[in-house]
Amino acid sequence: MGEVSERERKIVVAVDEGEESLYALSWCLKNVVFQNSKDTLILLYARPPRPIYTAMDGTDGEFQTLHPTEELPGYLFSADIMATLDRYSYDVAEAVVEKAKRLCDHLNNVKVETRVESGDARDVICQVVEKLGAHILVMGSHGYGPIKRAFIGSVSNHCAKSVKCPVLIVKKPKNSSPLSSSSN
Amino acid sequence: MGEVSERERKIVVAVDEGEESLYALSWCLKNVVFQNSKDTLILLYARPPRPIYTAMDGTDGEFQTLHPTEELPGYLFSADIMATLDRYSYDVAEAVVEKAKRLCDHLNNVKVETRVESGDARDVICQVVEKLGAHILVMGSHGYGPIKRAFIGSVSNHCAKSVKCPVLIVKKPKNSSPLSSSSN
Repeated sequence: MGEVSERERKIVVAVDEGEESLYALSWCLKNVVFQNSKDTLILLYARPPRPIYTAMDGTDGEFQTLHPTEELPGYLFSADIMATLDRYSYDVAEAVVEKAKRLCDHLNNVKVETRVESGDARDVICQVVEKLGAHILVMGSHGYGPIKRAFIGSVSNHCAKSVKCPVLIVKKPKNSSPLSSSSN
Repeated sequence: MGEVSERERKIVVAVDEGEESLYALSWCLKNVVFQNSKDTLILLYARPPRPIYTAMDGTDGEFQTLHPTEELPGYLFSADIMATLDRYSYDVAEAVVEKAKRLCDHLNNVKVETRVESGDARDVICQVVEKLGAHILVMGSHGYGPIKRAFIGSVSNHCAKSVKCPVLIVKKPKNSSPLSSSSN
């Protein structure tokens, strides 16, 4: 019989800026992944694409159609500002995946990869899961995108319906502290 | 650091007559539960309650209000027939949980319990999970009830939103054979 420890599974964990997904990752590390399992953990972050910022003002979301210095209600889309937003976006992505990766530091012999893709979280997660042939997708139930409160659970709901692999949805209990690697 | 193998987790697996949930159980046995883990597997089956049969003909679903021999469009609810339906329902429940339990035969030192509750699957699963303080709920994505095709995914969707513990939703690939305990 094939013991779990002998299998090489690709475990995709969708992470974002919020505590929900990091809690999901912690839970996964304590309950699904374990030492010396030859599993590969893929920490996936979906970076909101640039058109999000232009879509906020009623345009069709195509950045390329705007003159770089054109003034729009409430927004001045200069090239400088767009460059700043881009850098910020990359910095956030870097910070998110590094924070997630640190949670995995205590694992022995488990490969941990990080992956940042640009796009809507629902599409990014489903596409990466399919492309990698993931054995399981792990997600928090909230978050994953710039408009979180309006769409609570919509990303996890969409992915749970769309992907073919098993999906583990982990909710962070209210007022709980993050799971530490040293606690039971 | 608390190793997974040292923890005593209550793992509730919702089973029903279909192959989907049994596939979910098999997957869980290979990927979440493992030998000598001190986990307790609770195989839960929600038995459709008797009022389902009366509700089909437009009554308010309260069996007790019907005269035992009253004839209704398409149905003759005699006491004999109701007794037969009850026995059938119990037999189905017994068959389902026994079949699920057999999938767990190869586990060493893992407690396996079966539980049959009467009621709508959505309510039963959520209530049992809360009552037991389950550490994780495992479900297939389809099934769980008499009207399956009309509500594909609705039970797993409802439970994933309602329960507080992590939920693992496993889909059975099309044209796949059941996972055997001896295969990798």
